Amino acid sequence: MLTSSDNNELFLGIDGGGSKCKAIIMNKNNEILGTGISGPGNPLHGFEQATYSITESANLALADAGLSHIELNELHAGVGLAGVNLPVLFDKMSAWQHPFKAMYLATDLLIACLGAHQGSDGAVVITGTGSCGFSCIDEEQYIIGAHGFPHGDKGSGAWFGLQAAKQVLLSIDGLVEPSSMNNVLLKKLNCNDDTDLVEKIAGKKATYYAQLANLVFDAAEQGDKVALAIVKEGAEYINSMARTLLAKKPNRFSMIGGLTPRLKPWLAKEIQAQLSEPLSPPEVGSVLFGRSEYIKQSGNKQQLA
Amino acid sequence: MLTSSDNNELFLGIDGGGSKCKAIIMNKNNEILGTGISGPGNPLHGFEQATYSITESANLALADAGLSHIELNELHAGVGLAGVNLPVLFDKMSAWQHPFKAMYLATDLLIACLGAHQGSDGAVVITGTGSCGFSCIDEEQYIIGAHGFPHGDKGSGAWFGLQAAKQVLLSIDGLVEPSSMNNVLLKKLNCNDDTDLVEKIAGKKATYYAQLANLVFDAAEQGDKVALAIVKEGAEYINSMARTLLAKKPNRFSMIGGLTPRLKPWLAKEIQAQLSEPLSPPEVGSVLFGRSEYIKQSGNKQQLA
Repeated sequence: MLTSSDNNELFLGIDGGGSKCKAIIMNKNNEILGTGISGPGNPLHGFEQATYSITESANLALADAGLSHIELNELHAGVGLAGVNLPVLFDKMSAWQHPFKAMYLATDLLIACLGAHQGSDGAVVITGTGSCGFSCIDEEQYIIGAHGFPHGDKGSGAWFGLQAAKQVLLSIDGLVEPSSMNNVLLKKLNCNDDTDLVEKIAGKKATYYAQLANLVFDAAEQGDKVALAIVKEGAEYINSMARTLLAKKPNRFSMIGGLTPRLKPWLAKEIQAQLSEPLSPPEVGSVLFGRSEYIKQSGNKQQLA
Repeated sequence: MLTSSDNNELFLGIDGGGSKCKAIIMNKNNEILGTGISGPGNPLHGFEQATYSITESANLALADAGLSHIELNELHAGVGLAGVNLPVLFDKMSAWQHPFKAMYLATDLLIACLGAHQGSDGAVVITGTGSCGFSCIDEEQYIIGAHGFPHGDKGSGAWFGLQAAKQVLLSIDGLVEPSSMNNVLLKKLNCNDDTDLVEKIAGKKATYYAQLANLVFDAAEQGDKVALAIVKEGAEYINSMARTLLAKKPNRFSMIGGLTPRLKPWLAKEIQAQLSEPLSPPEVGSVLFGRSEYIKQSGNKQQLA
């Protein structure tokens, strides 16, 4: 049985996103001992919710690992969070009176990239509810996109869903030709007509629109012209993002995020050819990041001593 | 001095929009005796706020008319509100325990159209923070657009502002050529860079984006290619909307809303040629609507007696 004396070798990894927060406990060999999932861990949607989700998922992971006798204040934690690329949120989360022995805070982009390439340099395109590109080469980080919805995040699940909703509304108004998506979208959202649809989607967030992305790809794959135009426009944006990243000559390049299986086949062939499978999920990247920071800081202390 | 015995001849008109609520008091000759303005009167942004704004603007209009001795419960009110084209909000506002003697509830679109054509049949294109088209011909109402932001409202102030913000973000990412709008927009929003900009615009509503519309037209008028493409796309949508309305052969056709002076010169010449100046503002339309409903209901009562 592991005891708290082993804790410097145990590490907690957190991947806090807009819809859920994932935690893992890894041992010194980077083997996963337990996992936990709770609600949104993205401080963009509220500090209270984010800190609650991080703490809860960590406790769930400890319980899952059979380590309930270990306290959070005995664990080092690598914490990757969406939103902390914004300085105001990074500062807010850094100032959190967290329950861990130490917290190493990173963006969701950095931990995703570290996870995909097992701690090595590389680049990633991430397409899920949002979209962005990221590279970390020789300790230099570069971000493209990651601007949020609806002003950015082109080529993301939310963007595809919003384009579909826009086209359906325009065609109900008779301003564009109807598409095979019209009935599918109205049915999916339990709407009879455009008034229902407008009531349903008024004020909705990215996650709501993202649930409509699959029907755009379904329709495009069946040859629907409106859906094809949307998919091609979204894919072309992701192509541009990928080309910008590839110009930085990363050792490895991966595509991750929930929309990857649908979107990847629509990317330019030369870009698809350069994609490598991601090696580990972002929460593993959090552990790798946390360990690396811990070692750096320990090294600094030894140098100072 | 007017007393409450004259009140059947006095009428209150309300135009409740997303940013402000306007009230007027008119006499039996439809002369304006007083006006009042308060905060948002659109129930889409909250029932409490809307009912408070309507009541407050009405009291301000009474005071402005020198009629503070008259109570709201002595006045008939024509009330036109944005949002009540959605049945759920129409029902909610109809169920309001309002302070008036009687309330005649209509959409902001109907009162705008009645105002523009002094109570006669006609059609209007409305481009302000949002966009829509409306016609009322032989008691048949037709709406096009009015879907809201960001899924609809193409060609509106909010839409123009959002397009500008999107282009600036894309060009900062190096994915499109920069435009003369870049510096103007960053300066207007007090931003140094794209990170500032993303922080500023995250989660912002239509009214926020609408304040950016003028800079798009400014840039387009100076020949900026990116701005020109945005303005042409927006104008083309409004052209389509106008053609759909003109196909219904309205006696009069007007363009109203805060974006009109900027957008009208960009519309197709044959559409500009068919535009007539609006005769009265929407709050006058509310009075005309209220009077007409009052007469109908009085007539019904006389028939029943």
